[in-house]
Amino acid sequence: MRLFKERRYISMISSERDGEEVTLMGWISSIRDHGNIMFVMLVDRDDEIQITVKRDNPLFTRFKELKEHSSIGVKGIVKSSKNAPRGIEIIPTLLEVFSISKMIPPFSIYSKSIPNMDLRLDIRAIDLRRNTLRSIFKIRYGILKAIREFLDKNNFIEVNTPKMISSATEGGAALFPIFYFNREAFLAQSPQLYKEQLTMAFDSVFEIAPIFRAEPSRTNRHLAEAISVDVEKAFIDYTDAMELLEDLIIYSIEYIKKYNIKELEILNIKFDVTKPFPRYTYTELIDRLKEYGAKIEWGEDFSTENLKLLGEMMNGYYFITDWPTKIKPFYAKPKSDAKISETFDLMHNELEISSGSSRINVKEEIIERMKSQGLNPNSFDYHLRVFDYGMPPHAGFGLGLERFLMTICKLDNIRDATFYPRDIERLTP
Amino acid sequence: MRLFKERRYISMISSERDGEEVTLMGWISSIRDHGNIMFVMLVDRDDEIQITVKRDNPLFTRFKELKEHSSIGVKGIVKSSKNAPRGIEIIPTLLEVFSISKMIPPFSIYSKSIPNMDLRLDIRAIDLRRNTLRSIFKIRYGILKAIREFLDKNNFIEVNTPKMISSATEGGAALFPIFYFNREAFLAQSPQLYKEQLTMAFDSVFEIAPIFRAEPSRTNRHLAEAISVDVEKAFIDYTDAMELLEDLIIYSIEYIKKYNIKELEILNIKFDVTKPFPRYTYTELIDRLKEYGAKIEWGEDFSTENLKLLGEMMNGYYFITDWPTKIKPFYAKPKSDAKISETFDLMHNELEISSGSSRINVKEEIIERMKSQGLNPNSFDYHLRVFDYGMPPHAGFGLGLERFLMTICKLDNIRDATFYPRDIERLTP
Repeated sequence: MRLFKERRYISMISSERDGEEVTLMGWISSIRDHGNIMFVMLVDRDDEIQITVKRDNPLFTRFKELKEHSSIGVKGIVKSSKNAPRGIEIIPTLLEVFSISKMIPPFSIYSKSIPNMDLRLDIRAIDLRRNTLRSIFKIRYGILKAIREFLDKNNFIEVNTPKMISSATEGGAALFPIFYFNREAFLAQSPQLYKEQLTMAFDSVFEIAPIFRAEPSRTNRHLAEAISVDVEKAFIDYTDAMELLEDLIIYSIEYIKKYNIKELEILNIKFDVTKPFPRYTYTELIDRLKEYGAKIEWGEDFSTENLKLLGEMMNGYYFITDWPTKIKPFYAKPKSDAKISETFDLMHNELEISSGSSRINVKEEIIERMKSQGLNPNSFDYHLRVFDYGMPPHAGFGLGLERFLMTICKLDNIRDATFYPRDIERLTP
Repeated sequence: MRLFKERRYISMISSERDGEEVTLMGWISSIRDHGNIMFVMLVDRDDEIQITVKRDNPLFTRFKELKEHSSIGVKGIVKSSKNAPRGIEIIPTLLEVFSISKMIPPFSIYSKSIPNMDLRLDIRAIDLRRNTLRSIFKIRYGILKAIREFLDKNNFIEVNTPKMISSATEGGAALFPIFYFNREAFLAQSPQLYKEQLTMAFDSVFEIAPIFRAEPSRTNRHLAEAISVDVEKAFIDYTDAMELLEDLIIYSIEYIKKYNIKELEILNIKFDVTKPFPRYTYTELIDRLKEYGAKIEWGEDFSTENLKLLGEMMNGYYFITDWPTKIKPFYAKPKSDAKISETFDLMHNELEISSGSSRINVKEEIIERMKSQGLNPNSFDYHLRVFDYGMPPHAGFGLGLERFLMTICKLDNIRDATFYPRDIERLTP
C-alpha cells in the first residue's frame, strides 16, 4: 500500500463528498465496540472522523484487533450520517495497520487537564495528542506567524546569534557552563549584546531562538530553556519600543482570533484586550504597594508576594516603567536623573512577560555601568570595541514566548507552553 | 532632537520629493571633502543617499568634524541633482551627531571580498556594514521567509525542541558537554528524535534552530554552531521527502528572484535551476568514481577528494540515494535488501547541503540498529518508549541553512553565511 499520494486530510472531508472513496491516515483516539458494530475515531493533523465497521464488513475482524493510539491507513467510502460527529462517517474498504499500540497511556486523551505533570511528560509525545495541548501548540504557531508577519511589515530583518558565548551578558547569574573544545564557555542567556551590535548594520533586527537560564528553583513560570522573541531597533528609545511591543501583542491576538478560531473555541478563550496598555512607573507602584501594607522599599525588585498583590490590582497587560538603574542590567540607559533608567517590563497580572529599555550607546558610559555592577569590562572587550565605530542610539525588548502563550491560553504551568520542558529536575525526554 | 517619529527611510526618498523636508538617520559610509563643498554618503537599513554641504551652509564646520561610520540624524531638503547617485541629494538644515566614530576599520567598506577573515570577524558588526555582506544576509532572510511560507502552505507546524539533551542522537561523535545543574548533559547536534516523536501528534512538523557540533577541524564548510532546517512528516517515505525538499529549494530560489532583486544584482547572481534534480544511487556513483580511478570501496563514505571529483562531474543540485545502511544513522530505514537504506543526501557540486531518509517506526528494529552501531538502547529509553503507542511511518530531512545559502550566494567560506561564526578556534565576538 503506497497510499501517500492519494492521502486526504480529514478536515477536507465533508458530507459534500458523500459516496466518494477517500484515503485517510492517522491514529485511533477511541474504539466503541457494540458487538455487531464498531465505531473507530481516526485523528490526523487537525481533525477527527468516525469509521463505522459493521459485522458484514470483510474488515470487521481486522478492526477488532486494533487498539487505541495505533497508526493506520484507511481507504473507504464517505457516507452522510446524522448520528456521526460532523454528520459523516467512513465505511472502510481497505485497512493498513502501520503500527499497533502496545501500551495504554496512564491518562485519558480526552482530559482537559491532568494534574500529574511528570506522568504526562514521561511520554510527552502521547500527551501532545490531547486535543487541549494540540490546540495550545497550534495557537503557539499562530503567534509565531503573527510576530514574524508584524516584524516583517515593520521592516525588521531576522538574525541568528551564537548560543555558545565566552562571557555572561547580564552578570554571572544562572549560566550553564559548556566545555568548548579545550576551554570554558557558556550558553547564552540572551542575545542582548549581539542584537544591539547588529543594529549598526541592519538597523532593525529580531531573533526568535532558545535562551538558557540555570534557574535553581522549580516554579510554574520558569524554564531552563525557553524561546525568546528579541527585538532591537536603531534610532528609537524605550517609549517607542513600548509602542512597538504593544502593537506586536495586539497584532498577535488579532491574528489568532482570525486564524485559530477552532482552537480558541476548544480552549474556551475570549479576549478583551485594547491598547494602550496602562503604564505605571516603578515608583508609583511602590507607593501603591506600600499603601496596601506590602513589604518593599524603593530600589528593591518586586518579590513574588509583591507581584501577586500587583496582579490582584491589575487586569491584563500593563507596563511598569522607569525602574531604578541599579536593579536593571548594565546596558539599560539611565535617565537624566541617573538613579532611574529608561526601562520597562510588560506584565500580565502577576506575570512578567517582557523586559526592554533604551540602551547605552556610549562606550565610556557602558564601561561605567559595568563597573558599578561588579563586572569586568575586559571580558566584554569584543563587545566594547564596536562602540568605537559609531554605535547608533537604540532600544528593544525581549519577550518570553512561553509566558506570552501562558497569558493567551490562560495556562497555570509554563511547561504546557513548551514541547519538552527543561528544569532543574528534568532533562528528559 | 526627538526625531524618530518623523524619520523616513532613504529608500523612500526619490526625486518626486524634490523640495520636501525629510528627516533621515543612519551612518556615514564615505566623506569626500573638496574644500568648499563636501559630499557625505548616509546609509540606512537598505539604501544610501548623498548629503551635499557647501561652505555657505551654517552646518559646514560641524560636518567637517564628522568621520566615516559615525551615527547621525539629518534634517534636510530633497533636491534633484543629475550628478548625485540616484539623481537626488539632501541639503542639510539640521544635524544631530548621535555617536562619532573613533576608529577607522582595517578594511574598506566598499570591498567585495576581503581575504583576511579573522581581521573582519574581530569587528564583525562593522564588517557587516559592507554592502556585500548586507546583501547576503538579506537574501538569507528571504530564504527563511520562503522556507516558512512553503512549509506553512504545505500544512506543517513549527515546533521547538530542547537543545540541552541527556544522550547523543547519532552516536557520541562531536558533542559539546554541558554542566546541567548537578549532572552531565550535551548540546543537541540535531532535533532528530524529537521531531520524529512530534509526528505522532502533529503529523507534519518543522524546526529552524541552532545545532551544535564539536567539529575538530577548521574548514571552510563546517561550523560548530549552525542553523538547521528540520522537516519531518508522517505517512511519507524518502522519495516523498526528496520531492518535498526539491520543491522547497525551488520555492526559495523563486522567492528571492522575486523579492531580492537588488541584492542578487549587487552579488551578481543568476540562477539556472530546474527540477527534478538528478538522482544517483550511492552505488552508481561509486562505480563512476572508480572509473575515474578514485580510491573508494563500496560501503565507505565519500572522502573530501571523492567529493571534489563528484563536484567536477556534476552541475548544481543532485541527490545521492540508497546509501549503505551501516554508514547512515540508526534511525534510517533499511530497504528489503538490508545492506542498503532509504536514505538520501542533497548535494550541490561537492557540498552536501541536506540529509534525509525514511525512518524506522518499529521499536525492535530500531533497537537492533542501535546495537549494531554500538549504541546502548537504555540511554534512549525516553525515546524508545513512545514507539509503544503507535508510531506512524515517517520521513524527513535536515537542511543546513548556511550551506544552502553558500550555494545560493556562491560563497567559498561558510563563515560569511552566518553572523557570528563559531569554530574550534573562535568563540568571540
